[in-house]
Amino acid sequence: MIDNKAFYKLSYGLYLVSSISEGKKNAQIANTVFQITSNPAILAVSINKKNLTHDYIQSSKLIGISALSIETPIEFIGKFGFKSGRDIDKFEGVSFKTIESGVPIILDNTSSYFELKVEKEIDVFTHTIFICKVLNAELINDVEQITYKYYQDMKRGISPKVEANIPQNKNQTSKNIGKYECTVCGYIYDPAVGDPDSGIPAGTPFENIPDDWTCPICGVTKDNFKLIV
Amino acid sequence: MIDNKAFYKLSYGLYLVSSISEGKKNAQIANTVFQITSNPAILAVSINKKNLTHDYIQSSKLIGISALSIETPIEFIGKFGFKSGRDIDKFEGVSFKTIESGVPIILDNTSSYFELKVEKEIDVFTHTIFICKVLNAELINDVEQITYKYYQDMKRGISPKVEANIPQNKNQTSKNIGKYECTVCGYIYDPAVGDPDSGIPAGTPFENIPDDWTCPICGVTKDNFKLIV
Repeated sequence: MIDNKAFYKLSYGLYLVSSISEGKKNAQIANTVFQITSNPAILAVSINKKNLTHDYIQSSKLIGISALSIETPIEFIGKFGFKSGRDIDKFEGVSFKTIESGVPIILDNTSSYFELKVEKEIDVFTHTIFICKVLNAELINDVEQITYKYYQDMKRGISPKVEANIPQNKNQTSKNIGKYECTVCGYIYDPAVGDPDSGIPAGTPFENIPDDWTCPICGVTKDNFKLIV
Repeated sequence: MIDNKAFYKLSYGLYLVSSISEGKKNAQIANTVFQITSNPAILAVSINKKNLTHDYIQSSKLIGISALSIETPIEFIGKFGFKSGRDIDKFEGVSFKTIESGVPIILDNTSSYFELKVEKEIDVFTHTIFICKVLNAELINDVEQITYKYYQDMKRGISPKVEANIPQNKNQTSKNIGKYECTVCGYIYDPAVGDPDSGIPAGTPFENIPDDWTCPICGVTKDNFKLIV
């Protein structure tokens, strides 16, 4: 018997994983980055095969890792976590640098970074585990790291950071009828279209959607949407 | 340039990893347990080759994982983290069960457990990464999990849990001259012997040891020692 709730008790961090291929850059969010050995310094990184970053890593054998700080805005995580580099340039407006290999290292909201060279690839069904030699590693901001659990809590509105973004005066908000944007992934709810796949018919104002409805793209609750003005 | 402080920003949980070989049981503490794929459910576990549990896993291809709760006493972690199954029976006085494979699943301080079958072994210098199919998984106590960072803070006396164990009346403590035991790993400081490897000559009372001295076995500070009465 496999109870999926058992897996919620495994702990992870939250990282930006970047790579390059033929001069093109991409980056994504990942939670499975971990040190395997200290001498030599070896990290393992697990990436879904469907992701563009996965293709770039297989091509260049280079990875940049940015360990994110606990102060990382949820919108920053959403940009790298829920949008594809096939559709947008994720590096627009983002601070980064290159060191020696040419792989971009993202500096925004980063407490420490690692420049990695892939030494071995392990095929595990939907994912590849990349076993990597550490070329360079630096602590750039000694603040507490964000954990995957903290991020999940933040998405659900449990953390104080997100609670501060929830409108205090619900009556005032409910008077507005219009389009709402998910602050996490950028999905836009249009009342004229509704969300039929989730049982919300066309013509339903945002404020009439049941409270247990979640963003069809990234899964966050209604509290994470804002009116487009 | 590799700055070791960069690695402190990687996040981990804290787990008991158990195995069996020819009817003998053993278990150890590990922090690198992580899910790789969800369908099929695959976990990866990284273990130091020097450890007895590593030998048992290679022999039986079976692993039990207990995700520890945030309420786990530091002494419980010390028993599994700093003592070898070659010297003591770590299962004495510990609650555990077997499900179908025969691998022991430790239940004390456990929020969820996994029964695993090794499918692949990856040799990475000092460690082996075991890629494992999940045979059984169950949530048994829905409490917050302990993180590796929380445990490190606890060892350094930063957490309230450990601060409560520090003697309040230092004058009273300093009058005692005798043997002190490390509550984490069980090491005993004997003034007649001292700790010459760390520059503490024989004949040095425990209370005269400098405050920056740490346990020669497990590395915790003086605060974690108690007088043997």
